[in-house]
Amino acid sequence: MTQTAVFDLTSWSSQHLATVERSLDRWVEPEAPAGLGDAMRYAVLDGGKRLRPLLVLAACEAVQGNAGAALRAACAVELIHAYSLVHDDMPCMDDDVLRRGKPTVHVQFGPAMALLAGDALQALAFELLVPDDGSVPDGMAARLCRLLACAAGSQGMAGGQAIDLASVGCALSRDQLQTMHRLKTGALLQASVLMGAACAPVQASVQSALADYGAALGLAFQVVDDILDVTADSATLGKTAGKDAANDKPTYVSLLGLEPARVYAQELLDQALQALQRSGLTQTHSLVALADMVVNREK
Amino acid sequence: MTQTAVFDLTSWSSQHLATVERSLDRWVEPEAPAGLGDAMRYAVLDGGKRLRPLLVLAACEAVQGNAGAALRAACAVELIHAYSLVHDDMPCMDDDVLRRGKPTVHVQFGPAMALLAGDALQALAFELLVPDDGSVPDGMAARLCRLLACAAGSQGMAGGQAIDLASVGCALSRDQLQTMHRLKTGALLQASVLMGAACAPVQASVQSALADYGAALGLAFQVVDDILDVTADSATLGKTAGKDAANDKPTYVSLLGLEPARVYAQELLDQALQALQRSGLTQTHSLVALADMVVNREK
Repeated sequence: MTQTAVFDLTSWSSQHLATVERSLDRWVEPEAPAGLGDAMRYAVLDGGKRLRPLLVLAACEAVQGNAGAALRAACAVELIHAYSLVHDDMPCMDDDVLRRGKPTVHVQFGPAMALLAGDALQALAFELLVPDDGSVPDGMAARLCRLLACAAGSQGMAGGQAIDLASVGCALSRDQLQTMHRLKTGALLQASVLMGAACAPVQASVQSALADYGAALGLAFQVVDDILDVTADSATLGKTAGKDAANDKPTYVSLLGLEPARVYAQELLDQALQALQRSGLTQTHSLVALADMVVNREK
Repeated sequence: MTQTAVFDLTSWSSQHLATVERSLDRWVEPEAPAGLGDAMRYAVLDGGKRLRPLLVLAACEAVQGNAGAALRAACAVELIHAYSLVHDDMPCMDDDVLRRGKPTVHVQFGPAMALLAGDALQALAFELLVPDDGSVPDGMAARLCRLLACAAGSQGMAGGQAIDLASVGCALSRDQLQTMHRLKTGALLQASVLMGAACAPVQASVQSALADYGAALGLAFQVVDDILDVTADSATLGKTAGKDAANDKPTYVSLLGLEPARVYAQELLDQALQALQRSGLTQTHSLVALADMVVNREK
């Protein structure tokens, strides 16, 4: 029996998710003026798989890092993810009305408030990383900010979204599609792993192996997303299925075909697991199980 | 002859502005994918009074702080200001077509790209504060991030914008108007001063005096903005004049009347200068001159 088989991801996740939800509930305060707090909380609470926070916590566990810092990093990366969804759903972007089974933020609160809520969530993400109570050592805080800012910005998530915008109706090559996804979703997923690892002083070789794990997992996530967009229905996904095809967006399925896309996802899972072995870390049960979950999920 | 009279603000500003422009030109790189870099540079370069960067540099000068850190802080705060203008001008917010005498970013690049450019500028602001070259000590970097994140977020600029949204067509009290502006423009102006001061280890009493200076200056800036909105023309301002009245937005002029608003601006200038005297700092020529310029400017 392998380590993976005896590790109970459901139990591990539900314990950590409860902590993440409690923390988000505390840190995304309702007191922000004129309804802004309500819109921010609507965008963040009670929704999503929380994959990024779980990756942060799993990576921190693997390096036996500072748990308090990791919890802040986990929530920060989720706030960045949540803000990106709010802005991405807006009428001037994807104009989507359904997200996580609920009306999108701009439908519920209007586009102006959605814009502000996204902006404020990004600021709050960085604020969480630099508490003034001494709970995150300065050097660790600076490194966490650096990782998050790079992953969120023009050479990360925002840059990938710009390529996505420009690619509608275009025949992208596999390399171009890969670049888009490496930035658009991969950068933040990889940063989640690296932020967890940054909660302890680790050797460059360990960082590098975890970066490889994060890159493979990030890409696998997108390939599987593309597969589910054509194989699952909206009710299961909690968002509009078939959207990419309807918008004439290039996907791994449109480029490779459905079965080759599935094979590719399994190859990426193998790459991720091999990188973990290279890291030499021993407490990697949760990272192994999360990679498996990403590739073999049904929604 | 007073210190103010012999200090040449024009010469001081032009020297520091040249450094800020060069740095922004270097740090806001054109290489960001799919035109995103172009939109970011369009939003930031060749425009604006650069009041916030000058406040950072003047405050750093007053405390004789780390000049390299202050330059990064100066550019970071300007990036936050620039992103807020891009988002504020968008069709779902103020729907403005003219800014600094040029078409606004969404007119030039489309609203989706404007949204992304603003988002990426905010991330870049934080990235600038945490370079990995050791040029900003970790503790200083963390403090700069904290000041900027708080000033930009839901209890700062974004919160003020939410109140602004909710206030259109409402009869605000003077206290409510003050709260809105303290958050919407005041928080970032005050943070500029405090970030400059954070580039050296300073006593709490000095920080507190500079916080008072920044608060008075921030409020004065808005009162004068409201005055200029009714007394100056669009060509002088480089943006649409009379906009607040046209949008039925409450202003200091609509609330107090034109002459009482002018008197109030002078009172705030006095408060700012008294706070500087309380600080006990001696190298405050540039802070004195900037406060004077804010209140007595013609655009």
